[in-house]
Amino acid sequence: MKQTLKIIKIGGNVMNSKEALMGFLADFSKIKTPKILVHGGGKKATEISEKLGLQSKMIGGRRITNQAELEVVTMVYAGLLNKNITAQLQQNNCNAIGLSGADANIITAHKRIVKNIDYGFAGDVDAVNNKIVKVFLDNKLTPVFCAITHNKKGQLLNTNADTIANELAKSLSADYRVELIYCFEKKGVLLNVQEEDSVIEKIDVDLYENLQQKNIIADGMLPKLNNCFDALKNGVEKVIIGLPEVILNNNIKHTTLVL
Amino acid sequence: MKQTLKIIKIGGNVMNSKEALMGFLADFSKIKTPKILVHGGGKKATEISEKLGLQSKMIGGRRITNQAELEVVTMVYAGLLNKNITAQLQQNNCNAIGLSGADANIITAHKRIVKNIDYGFAGDVDAVNNKIVKVFLDNKLTPVFCAITHNKKGQLLNTNADTIANELAKSLSADYRVELIYCFEKKGVLLNVQEEDSVIEKIDVDLYENLQQKNIIADGMLPKLNNCFDALKNGVEKVIIGLPEVILNNNIKHTTLVL
Repeated sequence: MKQTLKIIKIGGNVMNSKEALMGFLADFSKIKTPKILVHGGGKKATEISEKLGLQSKMIGGRRITNQAELEVVTMVYAGLLNKNITAQLQQNNCNAIGLSGADANIITAHKRIVKNIDYGFAGDVDAVNNKIVKVFLDNKLTPVFCAITHNKKGQLLNTNADTIANELAKSLSADYRVELIYCFEKKGVLLNVQEEDSVIEKIDVDLYENLQQKNIIADGMLPKLNNCFDALKNGVEKVIIGLPEVILNNNIKHTTLVL
Repeated sequence: MKQTLKIIKIGGNVMNSKEALMGFLADFSKIKTPKILVHGGGKKATEISEKLGLQSKMIGGRRITNQAELEVVTMVYAGLLNKNITAQLQQNNCNAIGLSGADANIITAHKRIVKNIDYGFAGDVDAVNNKIVKVFLDNKLTPVFCAITHNKKGQLLNTNADTIANELAKSLSADYRVELIYCFEKKGVLLNVQEEDSVIEKIDVDLYENLQQKNIIADGMLPKLNNCFDALKNGVEKVIIGLPEVILNNNIKHTTLVL
């Protein structure tokens, strides 16, 4: 039987508070199975951009990554955040290794084709080198990925962290029983966005289509759920959406996605 | 017989020119033996510090690393420079992996004890985990180290890049025949700093002491040469100081250090 691998993605709600992040990383370190962490960091990037006199431009929640912004996200995601998370995990005796997609050529991507909007140096993933990730896991290392990829032609690219988690999960399904966990600021997918407790505990493909038709799924949630079902259709065993606490405590209300 | 491992350190002269860096990385990629790159990046860190309204304070060529400066060097060394070098090497079909000392717990250090000067978050190396570096090399990866370490208690530390190269070289001598090459802006150690061509081609311990007594070794060169002899006394096979071109062309004038 394949070994379980947990791939956990954290975003703004955890990253933006030092205390929340430290608590989360202590919890994450306690996970006994092989594990991978994927992190964002958009708010810090925007903060540093402003200090440098740049104006971060976002369309539909996605960053327009010109050359100057690419340098900022490379500094903030791959440097400041990734290495501080790694050092914090090391303190918790979790043997973390901070990585971008350029490292060990793990994630190759191409610059997003311009249709209506030119996102600049935004990368859409082409391939994941799961073999070398398995070498790291076999050596008891815990990979920590920031949201930077490369095109194998020397160009770094800013890539959505949800997508990176998703692509890693699909690729590593070849060797592991992968559980993909998206941590965010809600308890799960809500039936009514106004009611924090209206968590839909299980969503299958039929219900998902139904919810979409009724316009119940909020805008920001759509790409996230599309990612999730894409993962399930491509070998990922289990996908969970919920609060960061869910990684250790399965009794906390959350949303499980199933085919 | 042990396999040869080349550990190459580059500093300002290569890092500060995009063209020089690209040329160097193309050369570096052609090295056939296992290899490790160690890079600095002080000038870029100072540039970003200034843009952020900080004033980089240096004493005797060493940075006083307060909290704000630590964030800058972490961003610039581990993020901007390390990942761009890694992506560039990938383009040259060198399977690079960018690392700080916190990654895989490779280099632990302690905050420098305050004697006369408080260097802030400057780290002096305690230990190198050579086993995991060997795993990377065995898997055909080329480690690229920036000058950041950690104390295993969650604290990142700014560490001199020459020292990192030196400590890696000593530690990896257990498994490899290590050649340590320091690339800088001169052809080697000069007998007369005014004459670029007055390279001392071979320096042994006796000559080194002699040159020191005669005050021929310039100030900046002293810690570098102390590092070199420390390496030789601790198992490193060969130490070379010279221009970046020396990594591929042994006929270029350079300084070789021997016991």
